[in-house]
Amino acid sequence: MDTTDLRPGEVAVELPAGTDAGIYFIGVIHTPWKIRQECPKRGSTDGPVCTIVIDERWEKALTGIARHKRLQVLYWMHQARRDLVLQTPFQRDTAGTFALRSPVRPNPIASSLVELVAVSGNALQVRGLDCLDGTRLLDIKPERAVRD
Amino acid sequence: MDTTDLRPGEVAVELPAGTDAGIYFIGVIHTPWKIRQECPKRGSTDGPVCTIVIDERWEKALTGIARHKRLQVLYWMHQARRDLVLQTPFQRDTAGTFALRSPVRPNPIASSLVELVAVSGNALQVRGLDCLDGTRLLDIKPERAVRD
Repeated sequence: MDTTDLRPGEVAVELPAGTDAGIYFIGVIHTPWKIRQECPKRGSTDGPVCTIVIDERWEKALTGIARHKRLQVLYWMHQARRDLVLQTPFQRDTAGTFALRSPVRPNPIASSLVELVAVSGNALQVRGLDCLDGTRLLDIKPERAVRD
Repeated sequence: MDTTDLRPGEVAVELPAGTDAGIYFIGVIHTPWKIRQECPKRGSTDGPVCTIVIDERWEKALTGIARHKRLQVLYWMHQARRDLVLQTPFQRDTAGTFALRSPVRPNPIASSLVELVAVSGNALQVRGLDCLDGTRLLDIKPERAVRD
């Protein structure tokens, strides 16, 4: 168990011996932020335009996407540790991982809602992301409103 | 390439030779629906109470979750094929996978918004799910409202 860099109140568990399923990286996200410290705390549709580039294999899966103004984007937060059950975010109280949206979680899958600005071939321009440049894409879905 | 059971207009691609990252199943979701045909098309907070049971390893990560009335739940749709780029859902037009919320997608990760009814030890009772009984859990996060 890696207990380096634990903040007061944080608790790590031993990770399972193996993973249970595999995911494909299906594209890459380009943003203005090269290191974690530069990333905004949360994305805003007033923020800069970012570019999602889909691998050619999956390009046809974008068919018809332009009619959806808002999209849900899932991506992989590869720099985050996965073994914390209690966390103490900067200047906040300790809380359970599932009571936080921190990148640190057993499966570091982020979910962001973005506004679609333009589609060109296998590239989407969107607003609302807050991730590192080079982040790997997992999925894009049309947004479903909170209540529907 | 598995081209069995393709509907008119559907297109499959060859999947990559290997996956790029691994995920852990961190719990199980119990619902009233035992086969896909029984599942509602989309979950509703007027629907039945379902139970999410977290593996003991991760139980402490629920600390403080009761103060979040609405949660985002990520789970793994293990029965879905992963190789379709164009799909023809039942009684609908053909569309690209990323323009649909169908379970069929390169990474069959579902995202549902649920209402938290009760917490008891490592079990959460929630409303709003539409998945099969026995579905494996990937993550729970506090809901983030659409615009914040």
